[in-house]
Amino acid sequence: MALVQLVIVLALVQFFAFAVAVGKARETYGVVAPATTGHEIFERYYRVQMNTLELLVLLIPALWLFARDLSPATAAGLGALYLIGRGVYFVSYVKDPKTRSLGFALSSGPIVLLLLGALFGAARAVWLHGG
Amino acid sequence: MALVQLVIVLALVQFFAFAVAVGKARETYGVVAPATTGHEIFERYYRVQMNTLELLVLLIPALWLFARDLSPATAAGLGALYLIGRGVYFVSYVKDPKTRSLGFALSSGPIVLLLLGALFGAARAVWLHGG
Amino acid sequence: MALVQLVIVLALVQFFAFAVAVGKARETYGVVAPATTGHEIFERYYRVQMNTLELLVLLIPALWLFARDLSPATAAGLGALYLIGRGVYFVSYVKDPKTRSLGFALSSGPIVLLLLGALFGAARAVWLHGG
Repeated sequence: MALVQLVIVLALVQFFAFAVAVGKARETYGVVAPATTGHEIFERYYRVQMNTLELLVLLIPALWLFARDLSPATAAGLGALYLIGRGVYFVSYVKDPKTRSLGFALSSGPIVLLLLGALFGAARAVWLHGG
Repeated sequence: MALVQLVIVLALVQFFAFAVAVGKARETYGVVAPATTGHEIFERYYRVQMNTLELLVLLIPALWLFARDLSPATAAGLGALYLIGRGVYFVSYVKDPKTRSLGFALSSGPIVLLLLGALFGAARAVWLHGG
Repeated sequence: MALVQLVIVLALVQFFAFAVAVGKARETYGVVAPATTGHEIFERYYRVQMNTLELLVLLIPALWLFARDLSPATAAGLGALYLIGRGVYFVSYVKDPKTRSLGFALSSGPIVLLLLGALFGAARAVWLHGG
């Protein structure tokens, strides 16, 4: 499980880095708190952060349950793919939101697989042990 | 704990389904990224997703701690009620935000009980084992 | 780990309290759902909640992993600092967003330390046990 744990922490660090980028964009493009709109480029940074938040809430429990019930190595591999996909998503979304599809697919695809695996693992456990 | 795990995964899958609905609404109502406003119906879908995100971050740790420290069966039951309540919330909010109270109560009520139970369990553990 | 668990539950309860404050502000300042903009004071409450959501998603796994791999007592202490910092953040942000820096530093600082510790712990585990 050590690799799975490392992937989870790296996903947290990546999200933190995105949040720092949003903070910098807030200053660069003069968007004064509490506003989160007002400059197109700032909004791109902000949307990347929010979308990553949505995925992170899915990733962490799904990764953990998949690793525990099915395979830590596969879980870590899918998590690593997520990390790369999110990096691509960040760069392409900030450049041009229309090009975000590849990075989105590379980061949400692994989460779909982790969720399906975790669902299978949980359903099997209920079947075998009756809850 | 198998049932608890199943409920957690189903809550993740439900949130994922809400996110997919937001993606479709974005296209249907012509809200171009990075915007999250501009069409009332899209904004309803988006608010359902965000509100569910807020609750999910509370649900998962509270469910887990309540199940571990107090009762897995009660935790799973409250989690199942949350799932139904969120379904009601989604349907009623998208139709008319003014009718969202029932679904909100059915999904946030179980979380309040899970939180109170987890708080009691944690406080008892500190009392008994001194941290 | 009992103190760590208590700190986690208190962070969830605090976030829930912030969400309740947003709900009340929605009524007080007449911001009708699904809108999240339209009144500056409401937007302050809402931004406090969203920013806390972002930090909470980092705090909970980082706190847990830091406590398990390094030191439960240090983790609980950093978590307690986070709780105080968030309280300061809430009060100062709602009064005047320009004064939010101290509360932000007091609540995000502990998270940076927890993340660095969790990263060190995970990397060491991979190094020692080879994944």
